[in-house]
Amino acid sequence: MNSTDIRLDITKIPKSRIDAVDFENLQFGKQHADHMMYCDFIDGEWQTPKIVPYGPMQFEPSAKVFHYGQAVFEGMKAFKDEEDKVWLFRPEQNFQRINKSSKRMAIPEFPESHFFASLEALLKLDKDWVRKGGGNSLYIRPFVIATESGVSASESDRYRFMIITCPAQAYYSKPIKVIFAQDYSRAADGGVGFAKAAGNYGAQFYPTKLAKEKGLDQIIWTDASSHEYLEEAGTMNIFFRVGDKLFTAPTNDRILDGVTRKSIIQLAKDKNVEVVVDKVSVKQIVEAAKSGELKEIFGTGTAAAIVRVEGFEHDDVYYDLPDIEEPYGTFFKKNLQDIQYNRVEDTHGWTRQVI
Amino acid sequence: MNSTDIRLDITKIPKSRIDAVDFENLQFGKQHADHMMYCDFIDGEWQTPKIVPYGPMQFEPSAKVFHYGQAVFEGMKAFKDEEDKVWLFRPEQNFQRINKSSKRMAIPEFPESHFFASLEALLKLDKDWVRKGGGNSLYIRPFVIATESGVSASESDRYRFMIITCPAQAYYSKPIKVIFAQDYSRAADGGVGFAKAAGNYGAQFYPTKLAKEKGLDQIIWTDASSHEYLEEAGTMNIFFRVGDKLFTAPTNDRILDGVTRKSIIQLAKDKNVEVVVDKVSVKQIVEAAKSGELKEIFGTGTAAAIVRVEGFEHDDVYYDLPDIEEPYGTFFKKNLQDIQYNRVEDTHGWTRQVI
Repeated sequence: MNSTDIRLDITKIPKSRIDAVDFENLQFGKQHADHMMYCDFIDGEWQTPKIVPYGPMQFEPSAKVFHYGQAVFEGMKAFKDEEDKVWLFRPEQNFQRINKSSKRMAIPEFPESHFFASLEALLKLDKDWVRKGGGNSLYIRPFVIATESGVSASESDRYRFMIITCPAQAYYSKPIKVIFAQDYSRAADGGVGFAKAAGNYGAQFYPTKLAKEKGLDQIIWTDASSHEYLEEAGTMNIFFRVGDKLFTAPTNDRILDGVTRKSIIQLAKDKNVEVVVDKVSVKQIVEAAKSGELKEIFGTGTAAAIVRVEGFEHDDVYYDLPDIEEPYGTFFKKNLQDIQYNRVEDTHGWTRQVI
Repeated sequence: MNSTDIRLDITKIPKSRIDAVDFENLQFGKQHADHMMYCDFIDGEWQTPKIVPYGPMQFEPSAKVFHYGQAVFEGMKAFKDEEDKVWLFRPEQNFQRINKSSKRMAIPEFPESHFFASLEALLKLDKDWVRKGGGNSLYIRPFVIATESGVSASESDRYRFMIITCPAQAYYSKPIKVIFAQDYSRAADGGVGFAKAAGNYGAQFYPTKLAKEKGLDQIIWTDASSHEYLEEAGTMNIFFRVGDKLFTAPTNDRILDGVTRKSIIQLAKDKNVEVVVDKVSVKQIVEAAKSGELKEIFGTGTAAAIVRVEGFEHDDVYYDLPDIEEPYGTFFKKNLQDIQYNRVEDTHGWTRQVI
């Protein structure tokens, strides 16, 4: 990693909290490893990154992040192989994307050297929090927040870039039921849907709550103008298997350019599975469900890896998906995780060893 | 105010900071009055509101507001009349709207009694921060933020409702130049544009920065699907005067239901000025500008009151607005402020005396 010349201020925790953690019963995102990183943007410059024990911090109540949602984030994972080596999966993708998100939210971009030097140092300090074994990982949450004090509605002149981490087991372990959005929308053309902007997520909680009240788990968002095309699921991109082909929407300014999404497209090509990256119409999928040609729907994302959809609701009709043998979802999840946990050769050069 | 039975915990500042403030040279939103209010939502209930000296507070770095923008706010003002009485302008509108915003963002609604009791107590403590004289006011910023610690993308189970205040002079004192949006968008149908959701504001900073680089001050947003209809300006609703009629867009799920907007519509009716509340097309306004029938454009909002637009850009053409005598904008601004500062009879029952 390109991190040799970066100064970091490191304050270690006096005694690790790791012994108090029950790694068999983790609730996603609730436990934090011993340390965190923060780096302030002041007077037009990113300052020296600091690594300190994880804990609460002081903020002004008038800090702009609280009022104007000027904030972006990323999700990454560190994996430990059987030889106790620790690996990141395509971390340059997350680094590039957080800066893309930042740009759209008028946040200054973060230097690559700062990012990788501090992430590497953080993982080295907290390497025991990365656990071996299928489904285990250390979830990494880089984020940037606007910290200038003052309630005028304009971009902040101060920011804090942070990295916190959480030990994680498999996320969304059960298959999920989804609904195709017909009333609510996630993103506008010309909006911030392609960015991991904080407000994109909070805006989905209420419609998702309504879906949950109907016994469904997640929403597959459609285009805001017509609700005729299936886009993404808010925390996941979505793939549809019709016959033996996979279909997924192209990325655009409403859809997140998911790292897992693009990796699955590549893995499918490697295995000679045809992937059609084109608009996916609700009509096409409903008809395929009725005719029995719709074999699978699955979601892809860093937190979730691959999640099987067991059925969907549209126009008040619920469609069960068949329980097929050798689903693509299971196959590609294993394929992906074999690479992430360094169990097979990484022919694409996707993984980066940290320790 | 409906506040008699509400318990408040009040901790007064040992010594007011007011003498250190230069009220002739305020920067909007940068100075805070002595006290602030906060009230936590824990275990499904809003706790006792607390009034304490304004200052920084501790938050977990994994608090959901930092990651998912689950946050809403309001803007209100307190005005002091010549007899040192302090008035609020239609505060029930702001109270109702913050709960409407909260509902859309899956945030629990705040009780009316808590809101008014604590706001009244806060203003009584900080009454010296409300200054007499035209353009002076105490800007009031109620807001709610998600405070649960944990990075899973679902609604928080803890919140903090806060009120902070800032002494204010006139905001946006100069006429502004605007651009009609053609590439970027503010809100989607079925999205959160009607709510004062934090993320709606942060999402505008980058396109606004691009507009500023072209010498323009603000963007008038158009509908995201076609960019053919003029909607609002992000921190203001917008009125167009063509001939002697005023035109403004109807509220919908993309447009904020502004308190100043609806007050101006009423004041115009009172003065027999026709207001057409209907879709306003870009084409109509550009043609009216070319023919000379477009007399004024002005923005309305709590922070800004009424702001004159001196010209607009569309399709790379800049249109100057005429410098007319007795503009509606100036007339209605005086009309509105006469009511707000208790200089005329308030025939609509809009003002509420606090002190």
